[in-house]
Amino acid sequence: MSDINQQNDGPGCPILSEVDGERITLAYGEGGRLSRQLIGERILTRFANDQLNELGDAALLTSNTRRLAFSTDGYTVTPLFFPGGDIGKLAVFGTTNDLAVSGAIPRWLSLSLIIEEGLPWSVLDRVLDSIQHASAIANATIVTGDTKVVPYGAADKLFITTSGVGEVLEPAPPGARSLQPDDVLIVSGPIGSHGAAILCAREKFDFDPLPASDCASLSQPLISLYSAGLTPRAVRDATRGGVAAVLHEWADASGLTCVINESAIPVADCVRGICELLGLDPLHFANEGTFVLSTRPELVESTLDLLREHRATHQAAVIGWVKPRRNSPVLVVRGIGREVVLDEPSGAPLPRIC
Amino acid sequence: MSDINQQNDGPGCPILSEVDGERITLAYGEGGRLSRQLIGERILTRFANDQLNELGDAALLTSNTRRLAFSTDGYTVTPLFFPGGDIGKLAVFGTTNDLAVSGAIPRWLSLSLIIEEGLPWSVLDRVLDSIQHASAIANATIVTGDTKVVPYGAADKLFITTSGVGEVLEPAPPGARSLQPDDVLIVSGPIGSHGAAILCAREKFDFDPLPASDCASLSQPLISLYSAGLTPRAVRDATRGGVAAVLHEWADASGLTCVINESAIPVADCVRGICELLGLDPLHFANEGTFVLSTRPELVESTLDLLREHRATHQAAVIGWVKPRRNSPVLVVRGIGREVVLDEPSGAPLPRIC
Repeated sequence: MSDINQQNDGPGCPILSEVDGERITLAYGEGGRLSRQLIGERILTRFANDQLNELGDAALLTSNTRRLAFSTDGYTVTPLFFPGGDIGKLAVFGTTNDLAVSGAIPRWLSLSLIIEEGLPWSVLDRVLDSIQHASAIANATIVTGDTKVVPYGAADKLFITTSGVGEVLEPAPPGARSLQPDDVLIVSGPIGSHGAAILCAREKFDFDPLPASDCASLSQPLISLYSAGLTPRAVRDATRGGVAAVLHEWADASGLTCVINESAIPVADCVRGICELLGLDPLHFANEGTFVLSTRPELVESTLDLLREHRATHQAAVIGWVKPRRNSPVLVVRGIGREVVLDEPSGAPLPRIC
Repeated sequence: MSDINQQNDGPGCPILSEVDGERITLAYGEGGRLSRQLIGERILTRFANDQLNELGDAALLTSNTRRLAFSTDGYTVTPLFFPGGDIGKLAVFGTTNDLAVSGAIPRWLSLSLIIEEGLPWSVLDRVLDSIQHASAIANATIVTGDTKVVPYGAADKLFITTSGVGEVLEPAPPGARSLQPDDVLIVSGPIGSHGAAILCAREKFDFDPLPASDCASLSQPLISLYSAGLTPRAVRDATRGGVAAVLHEWADASGLTCVINESAIPVADCVRGICELLGLDPLHFANEGTFVLSTRPELVESTLDLLREHRATHQAAVIGWVKPRRNSPVLVVRGIGREVVLDEPSGAPLPRIC
């Protein structure tokens, strides 16, 4: 893996002929014959569908519902491949999860690639295979896209931006401003795994076992919740900034305080070990397949029962409560009842996490 | 302008404190307080609307029509600012034009920024101002977005990916497969200006006057055409690969031959001069506010009359015809009637044109 991720670290790009068997050249990004060849041989072979096959300037969508959800995210993660996932899987699940937490069934995706000249075709193929696999799992169709190739050194290997359109299952979660005192806070699974996995892959830490990213589709469990009439007041996948960032946003939006119980928060043993060793808090670590939700007390048991039926959320747990505003927006009960303030993430603990 | 575009060409990024007054630091991309500050101070101040203000994971759209168009494009142009436009204007008009040529009224946009650490805030502000101005012209609302900051050297200043959703004005142009012999080919204005402008800006050519990009919104003239019952068989904005790429795609899709008359093709004098000097063909140069359309002969006069009422298309002209398949997909009648084959663009004449 380190070979794949570091093959461009030499002093300069090898001189490439226009068509190089091993590596992608600038000519493939120029909109002419080679661009069409790239699209025909690498994209359409994997993602063929009536809309994408048109290769029009835009895909035409027909929706049966009146409200749609629309989301976008850019993915710049390094390394491109890491335990538990890769940039392609991340780009599909990241955007489809954003639709799902917004109350929508993910339906259509766009795929925009910015490729550095000299990227091996084998790397692109591996990422596209992963995108194909992930979009099948998320049940979302790639209907439009764009490919740019920039000169060696102008980008780091590969950036992906996906946008998604989904159909809202009414009523959508009303959002953080609707939170009420005594609402219950639930996380869908162990936290901090994605951040820990990227940190270990990047720094070549040699823990055993290595943490694996939680990168996963959250569509199925969330759609099940919505369909069962268990729509939470708010749901958010806890990506950059981790669970701490979500709770701070919710406290700000609602004017209330989130109080969580440290001992109730699920964390994988290896993630906990890494955090203790490095003096970091898993609440600040990014997740890519874990959400936080806030729901009314009377829905908690049914919500947990349903989430535990799905693999991605089978370790869902209550971690705390929404309370009237205290002196701080987010408090953590540590050890034997001492409440400490949870800081909002602010610095740059780990760039290019997603 | 060259200062702005080249300020990162030194040996390394100056060491930045976490919050630097002049330049963007990694901390602004980490999802915490500073990320929210960037979004609050730079994005919401410019683009505030009910959907974007939610800062949810996805925007919720309500459409009155059943069919929607969905498009995406990544923008990597260098320099960021050039005569006639900049990366922001390009990112808005490029994507809204893709919706418009697909038969749709552009409605909603997503905005994904990948920013290189160290980019001056003044540059970001100037680009965001341009996006604000362009989205008002195109009458499209930015409803969702994402911002990543990557370490110095991992990207070249700024990449933007916009996706757009529009409402289809039925019937949409049926597309290139519907072309018929004796259809008439029209371009909406002088060709090659964007490519020539970027070439001159990049190579510091000192022509007088310098060519300016044609970067413009094509929504208004196209919506007028559709609304007037003058929907063409096919429309395409002639971006990467230029008019030559569009005609080749259409010939391939229809199994017919496109024959164009060189003397009928509008080209600005300065663009023509540059092409002659460098031995390049404006048919291969990119445009960013110019489309090609194919329509039935009986609609030609009304189509031209209507296009000439709009500033972006007031120099629209008939350039050729669709004919039964000949020995080549695209032919150009040059000089006194000699037909020559027009090659499909294939190499890399100018990377990072858009």
